[in-house]
Amino acid sequence: DFLNALDEVKPAFGADESELEKHLAYGVIHYSKSITSILEDGLLYVNNVRKLERLKHMTVLLHGPSASGKTALAAHIAMKSDFPFIKFITPTDMVGFRDEVAKKDYMHKIFTDAYKSPLSLLIIDNIERIIEWNPVGPRLSNTILQALVTLLVTPPPKGHRLLILATTSQRTVMEQLDVTESFDYQIAVPAVNNLQELGAVLNEVGAFGGDQAAVSEVLNTLREYTGSDSVGVGVRTILTIAESADTSPDPKGWFVEKMAGLIARYNVR
Amino acid sequence: DFLNALDEVKPAFGADESELEKHLAYGVIHYSKSITSILEDGLLYVNNVRKLERLKHMTVLLHGPSASGKTALAAHIAMKSDFPFIKFITPTDMVGFRDEVAKKDYMHKIFTDAYKSPLSLLIIDNIERIIEWNPVGPRLSNTILQALVTLLVTPPPKGHRLLILATTSQRTVMEQLDVTESFDYQIAVPAVNNLQELGAVLNEVGAFGGDQAAVSEVLNTLREYTGSDSVGVGVRTILTIAESADTSPDPKGWFVEKMAGLIARYNVR
Amino acid sequence: DFLNALDEVKPAFGADESELEKHLAYGVIHYSKSITSILEDGLLYVNNVRKLERLKHMTVLLHGPSASGKTALAAHIAMKSDFPFIKFITPTDMVGFRDEVAKKDYMHKIFTDAYKSPLSLLIIDNIERIIEWNPVGPRLSNTILQALVTLLVTPPPKGHRLLILATTSQRTVMEQLDVTESFDYQIAVPAVNNLQELGAVLNEVGAFGGDQAAVSEVLNTLREYTGSDSVGVGVRTILTIAESADTSPDPKGWFVEKMAGLIARYNVR
Amino acid sequence: DFLNALDEVKPAFGADESELEKHLAYGVIHYSKSITSILEDGLLYVNNVRKLERLKHMTVLLHGPSASGKTALAAHIAMKSDFPFIKFITPTDMVGFRDEVAKKDYMHKIFTDAYKSPLSLLIIDNIERIIEWNPVGPRLSNTILQALVTLLVTPPPKGHRLLILATTSQRTVMEQLDVTESFDYQIAVPAVNNLQELGAVLNEVGAFGGDQAAVSEVLNTLREYTGSDSVGVGVRTILTIAESADTSPDPKGWFVEKMAGLIARYNVR
Amino acid sequence: DFLNALDEVKPAFGADESELEKHLAYGVIHYSKSITSILEDGLLYVNNVRKLERLKHMTVLLHGPSASGKTALAAHIAMKSDFPFIKFITPTDMVGFRDEVAKKDYMHKIFTDAYKSPLSLLIIDNIERIIEWNPVGPRLSNTILQALVTLLVTPPPKGHRLLILATTSQRTVMEQLDVTESFDYQIAVPAVNNLQELGAVLNEVGAFGGDQAAVSEVLNTLREYTGSDSVGVGVRTILTIAESADTSPDPKGWFVEKMAGLIARYNVR
Amino acid sequence: DFLNALDEVKPAFGADESELEKHLAYGVIHYSKSITSILEDGLLYVNNVRKLERLKHMTVLLHGPSASGKTALAAHIAMKSDFPFIKFITPTDMVGFRDEVAKKDYMHKIFTDAYKSPLSLLIIDNIERIIEWNPVGPRLSNTILQALVTLLVTPPPKGHRLLILATTSQRTVMEQLDVTESFDYQIAVPAVNNLQELGAVLNEVGAFGGDQAAVSEVLNTLREYTGSDSVGVGVRTILTIAESADTSPDPKGWFVEKMAGLIARYNVR
Ligand SMILES: Nc1ncnc2c1ncn2[C@@H]1O[C@H](COP(=O)(O)OP(=O)(O)OP(=O)(O)O)[C@@H](O)[C@H]1O
Ligand SMILES: Nc1ncnc2c1ncn2[C@@H]1O[C@H](COP(=O)(O)OP(=O)(O)OP(=O)(O)O)[C@@H](O)[C@H]1O
Ligand SMILES: Nc1ncnc2c1ncn2[C@@H]1O[C@H](COP(=O)(O)OP(=O)(O)OP(=O)(O)O)[C@@H](O)[C@H]1O
Ligand SMILES: Nc1ncnc2c1ncn2[C@@H]1O[C@H](COP(=O)(O)OP(=O)(O)OP(=O)(O)O)[C@@H](O)[C@H]1O
Ligand SMILES: Nc1ncnc2c1ncn2[C@@H]1O[C@H](COP(=O)(O)OP(=O)(O)OP(=O)(O)O)[C@@H](O)[C@H]1O
Ligand SMILES: Nc1ncnc2c1ncn2[C@@H]1O[C@H](COP(=O)(O)OP(=O)(O)OP(=O)(O)O)[C@@H](O)[C@H]1O
Ligand SMILES: [Mg+2]
Ligand SMILES: [Mg+2]
Ligand SMILES: [Mg+2]
Ligand SMILES: [Mg+2]
Ligand SMILES: [Mg+2]
Ligand SMILES: [Mg+2]
Repeated sequence: DFLNALDEVKPAFGADESELEKHLAYGVIHYSKSITSILEDGLLYVNNVRKLERLKHMTVLLHGPSASGKTALAAHIAMKSDFPFIKFITPTDMVGFRDEVAKKDYMHKIFTDAYKSPLSLLIIDNIERIIEWNPVGPRLSNTILQALVTLLVTPPPKGHRLLILATTSQRTVMEQLDVTESFDYQIAVPAVNNLQELGAVLNEVGAFGGDQAAVSEVLNTLREYTGSDSVGVGVRTILTIAESADTSPDPKGWFVEKMAGLIARYNVR
Repeated sequence: DFLNALDEVKPAFGADESELEKHLAYGVIHYSKSITSILEDGLLYVNNVRKLERLKHMTVLLHGPSASGKTALAAHIAMKSDFPFIKFITPTDMVGFRDEVAKKDYMHKIFTDAYKSPLSLLIIDNIERIIEWNPVGPRLSNTILQALVTLLVTPPPKGHRLLILATTSQRTVMEQLDVTESFDYQIAVPAVNNLQELGAVLNEVGAFGGDQAAVSEVLNTLREYTGSDSVGVGVRTILTIAESADTSPDPKGWFVEKMAGLIARYNVR
Repeated sequence: DFLNALDEVKPAFGADESELEKHLAYGVIHYSKSITSILEDGLLYVNNVRKLERLKHMTVLLHGPSASGKTALAAHIAMKSDFPFIKFITPTDMVGFRDEVAKKDYMHKIFTDAYKSPLSLLIIDNIERIIEWNPVGPRLSNTILQALVTLLVTPPPKGHRLLILATTSQRTVMEQLDVTESFDYQIAVPAVNNLQELGAVLNEVGAFGGDQAAVSEVLNTLREYTGSDSVGVGVRTILTIAESADTSPDPKGWFVEKMAGLIARYNVR
Repeated sequence: DFLNALDEVKPAFGADESELEKHLAYGVIHYSKSITSILEDGLLYVNNVRKLERLKHMTVLLHGPSASGKTALAAHIAMKSDFPFIKFITPTDMVGFRDEVAKKDYMHKIFTDAYKSPLSLLIIDNIERIIEWNPVGPRLSNTILQALVTLLVTPPPKGHRLLILATTSQRTVMEQLDVTESFDYQIAVPAVNNLQELGAVLNEVGAFGGDQAAVSEVLNTLREYTGSDSVGVGVRTILTIAESADTSPDPKGWFVEKMAGLIARYNVR
Repeated sequence: DFLNALDEVKPAFGADESELEKHLAYGVIHYSKSITSILEDGLLYVNNVRKLERLKHMTVLLHGPSASGKTALAAHIAMKSDFPFIKFITPTDMVGFRDEVAKKDYMHKIFTDAYKSPLSLLIIDNIERIIEWNPVGPRLSNTILQALVTLLVTPPPKGHRLLILATTSQRTVMEQLDVTESFDYQIAVPAVNNLQELGAVLNEVGAFGGDQAAVSEVLNTLREYTGSDSVGVGVRTILTIAESADTSPDPKGWFVEKMAGLIARYNVR
Repeated sequence: DFLNALDEVKPAFGADESELEKHLAYGVIHYSKSITSILEDGLLYVNNVRKLERLKHMTVLLHGPSASGKTALAAHIAMKSDFPFIKFITPTDMVGFRDEVAKKDYMHKIFTDAYKSPLSLLIIDNIERIIEWNPVGPRLSNTILQALVTLLVTPPPKGHRLLILATTSQRTVMEQLDVTESFDYQIAVPAVNNLQELGAVLNEVGAFGGDQAAVSEVLNTLREYTGSDSVGVGVRTILTIAESADTSPDPKGWFVEKMAGLIARYNVR
């Protein structure tokens, strides 16, 4: 099918391949249909920018709760794109800069580099951090925000094509800042929603020494504790707790305790 | 008639002609009467500045929702004006400047250049971005705003004539900032309002491989989905989705899904 | 009479005479009694500063809606004053300065120049722009505001006399900023209030090719459209639209359409 | 009596005597008992600082509405004090400084100069302008405010004595800023309160060519216009209007018109 | 007893002794039991820092209304402490510095000096002014605040001991700023509360030429005026007014007038 | 058991060992079961970072009221960790820096140092002070906040492992700032909750000369005063007051007075 066809394309990356793999420590687990659908849409946009006459420039926003896998999915789509120029822009890259102007210039420089390749893909990770968003005040760097929004909507020079994937866990903020207006498409990346999806994740990753009965037991205990099937915790958080739990004297008990705490916390909010 | 007479004038542009064409990727589709009327008024103002004794200076604001075609229409009027000096001022031009003073100086410089030609036309695109408007705070560059408003109302030197076309998708903000007071005339550029106008756009552009029956089918499906004839989406967005859709395994289904999402979103607001 | 006597004085200006004429493109039309009364009061103050023992320093604020003729009237009074030193301070003069301190220093410099002449008249045009007022925030340059207010109330050195005329379309703001406290007198400059005054303006300026029947027709149509005799539009706006209208295929229709729009807009506010 | 005894002291001023006289253009008119009482208290404090063992440092605030005579009264007390060092600190002195630090340093310098004389008197005029107060925001220079408040409460060095008179028309603001806490005593300087006081002022100054019947007529007309005996206008404003009026074709009418306007305005507030 | 024993210790100060005396112009009047109790607690903390194994570092806040004697009591405790290093940090010391960083560095420097002595006592006077607190805005120097709070809680180096006494008349503000959290102990310094305490102060200081009958008369008149026994005025204010009053033609009347005004003012608040 | 096993590990620290001990002046008193549980979880995380394949990076937040022992517990866990690189980041380290950029660079430098060791532990003490939090405004250093949050979530380079322990007494603020989202785990450090725990602390530390009957008496008196068993005061505050009390003429009375004051204060809030 459509997705598999793309999977067969052999990627030929530039210098940033190991950068891409770094964001895929646990791979991409297909624990729900929405994961497949996200990858299909992502690869359609990749194809549009590669081939269509007038769509030489496209901007896509991946948004979703903390630890839900936004960065990993963007990295996965980039790996599959086979574009000759792929580059990350992350808050960590900018932490050493003196001020917002230096950060803005760095970001501008990477766009300028991308414009030199005929076919480029940029991942702008965690745009709320890039713009130094802070909900108390509220504060942000208007200098970086203005540059970001302007660079997002600026088409590459004649004869060049550019796909931009951006991620955020603060979509409402981005709406308020009119940043979402600058994206052609938006993709929602959900948390692990319910106990069934949680079970899929735990089994896939071989939690509790691969003991599927233990997984069932844990799911049942959680259902009793929380009184529902809802989870609402990001896939990365789940994978981390599962790994910690294995070193505890009581892995199942420890896992249930921490997970129950998080489920309570996220569902209250 | 009046408009056609003007159309026959052979334009003789300066260096910025390709700049003007860049903003007209899909041309100007006459999908509603309002488009004709906008162009007529625009060209009347062009004529006024060219010929009248005392109207040597005129400022016009094109405002409307995102992607409704403001920049394209300004570019079209400029192409038809046959003025010897035509220049764009855009946020992208300013993204590399260090601070608001440098941006203000750049804008001032372009006005000074325009004052040197006997007959000049300036397009100031996206003035909310030029002044670095950000609704959270709210924040903006008061330095640039003050310079912009002052330059808008300053007449060119004796013996010189100047027409300014500005665009914005934030007219209410411009009202609040008392910027609209500085314009002699305002022109509203609407979104594609209803399914009939949407059909005109799709047929004109040859969507779905030029299959007009497919267009009708899509309009009917949208009417069912949304329960009304309202659209409220900018012409550029429609043209983009139509082009993406053609690369999907199910073009009509994909187009309807994305359009219905947008119609719901814009009508809620 | 009093006013005419002053009119007979032959003015002997300095370098700024053409500057004064620039603001009187359409002359001063006596379309209502308030215009005469404004000029009488203005010239009384001119005489006070020229002759009285203790009134060596006087400050007058002309305030009124946008385009109502404030600058033109101040320029007219200045022309009639016959003072050896007459100088404008306008936002345009300051647009090239780097920051508010440079602007403040420029303004201070002009005051210092004025102090050197035995008899000086300064016009500070558009004080809300001079202080960089922006209603959103709200923001302004406190540096310039403080200097302005201090310079307004500072008497010239011994043996020197100074009359200051300032204009603003934001009197309420000036009240809130305690700026009005710094003026000895205030003069209100109204908009064209009703259809009768509008008719006087149009006939005086020879609108519609000087066809007074056309003027009557237009006034009647406007009365029908708006359902009242109120106008509330500044004299400059009216003169501009009248001139544009003459180049339209349907001058009367076009004039009525644009005027009716403005009357509706200003009366709603 | 007490006050007269002080009046007989022959003053021997330093360089600032003409500065003091500048603020007394119309002298001090004893139009009400409160004027006498203000001068008595002021001279008691002068005597305290001159003679008492422990009261080597005293701070007094004169507050009252605009144009009520605060600066003139402070200047008058200073003239009577016979102190060897008398100095004004005014907003005008500071208008040429680049920023608030330069202004603060200037103020600090004058205090340091005052500390060098055994017996010093400083008049800090218009402290709301000194601290760059602006009610919109609100904004002020915290740098200058902090320095002012600190310098107010700092005693002079051993063997030195210092009296500080400050004026303000914004006492409520000074309360809110906790500035009033830094003053040992406060003196209220009222406006001309009623028609009787207004008559005293006009007769004393010889208004309407010294015609006391004209004064009576004017008072009666004002009583009719305003329907009460209240005035509430500062003595300086009254003196200015009276002088302007004499150059008008109709002095009494012109005076009544302007005064009635002011009385209405101040009583509404 | 405990307090007297400490009183007998012969103090041996460093360079700042005259600085300490400067703050004790009128000595310490024991007009109420709370004064004794404040001194007892203060000297207990002095002893703790001098002798206890683990309490090498202690911070104490004296708070109370304006002029209540906070600085005098801190100076008195410091004089009794017999510590080899005693130093004041006051707003006056900092008034000449260019900006908040220079002020912070100065404060830091004094702490560093204190760390060099084995046994140090710092008095930080008027911490609301040190941090440049201004209730309108509100504004303050966060740079100085952060440094102050950090320096307060930082223990001195090994082998060194440090007692910090700070004063403020804005305890509520200090609570809001979380500054009070940084103090180990707080001491309230009250105003002179009632007529009995006022009488004690006046008699002790020999007011009205030492005439105790005059004091009684004054107290009775005040009771009649104000209708209660409450006073609520700081001891320093009382001592100042008493001294001024003696130079008035009517000392008792003048004292009652000013005191009644203050009592009314403070009790309204 | 698990915890004791870890206790037997012989620590081998770097240069910061004395730094760790400095924060443990009174050791760790096991006055409640929650103390044991905190240490168990802390050491589980130490083990995870040391050994697990994918958990090379972990961030833990210790939060609790003022003086509850957060820093001491973090220091204790660090001492037990036996990691080759252990480093504190405290507000005191940063007090001498000129501005927030210098502070940010210092913090960044320490992270960079930590990245060089294969196994590092950082304690970031008092993060609300590190980011210069001030509840009035509110204000903080967004520069430092952004760097902190970014550095918290950035994994160490390949082949390196990093455990971060941070402390705060302002957890609600950290929630509002979205800082808590950046921590993998949170540990609550409670105050001494009730009289039973207070008794355990006092007996363990040998208060009142080790007289356990005196301790019982004091607890009973407090129960009577406050009418309940609640305490809610941090362990460090209790230890300080107990030590001060011993130097008072009436140790038990003094201790009860101060403790009752604090209990009342904290329970009102
Ligand atoms: N279906 C999946 N989608 C995304 N990530 C997955 C999936 N299955 C497993 N993972 C793993 O989960 C982790 C996702 O973490 P990632 O950092 O991408 O989340 P995030 O949403 O970007 O988090 P943050 O909000 O912190 O930016 C990765 O390690 C990835 O390998
Ligand atoms: N009638 C029309 N009016 C304007 N543009 C049209 C029309 N028909 C087709 N187009 C095409 O639609 C696009 C309009 O996009 P344009 O960027 O001008 O919109 P905009 O309103 O300026 O958007 P933005 O809010 O992003 O600034 C252009 O590619 C133009 O060629
Ligand atoms: N009676 C009149 N009073 C003032 N201006 C008049 C009058 N009659 C005709 N005019 C013309 O009208 C124009 C007035 O415009 P002007 O710029 O002075 O208005 P304004 O109130 O200063 O506007 P703005 O609010 O933009 O500063 C001038 O061209 C002037 O010649
Ligand atoms: N009784 C009086 N008290 C004060 N000034 C008087 C009196 N009688 C006459 N004058 C005159 O009135 C004027 C008072 O003006 P002054 O500038 O001192 O007022 P002000 O209250 O300081 O005004 P502002 O609010 O503008 O600072 C002076 O010219 C003074 O000579
Ligand atoms: N019991 C007392 N306590 C304190 N001061 C006293 C006492 N008796 C007399 N005094 C005198 O009263 C004055 C107290 O003034 P001080 O400046 O210390 O007050 P403060 O509270 O610090 O004022 P501020 O709020 O202005 O800082 C000193 O001159 C002191 O000698
Ligand atoms: N169970 C315990 N937990 C923590 N500290 C204890 C315990 N028992 C005794 N202590 C002692 O109590 C003190 C705790 O003070 P510490 O500075 O760590 O508190 P903190 O919560 O970090 O305070 P702050 O809010 O001021 O940062 C240390 O001196 C420590 O030796
Ligand atoms: Mg991510
Ligand atoms: Mg546009
Ligand atoms: Mg004008
Ligand atoms: Mg004054
Ligand atoms: Mg004090
Ligand atoms: Mg701590």
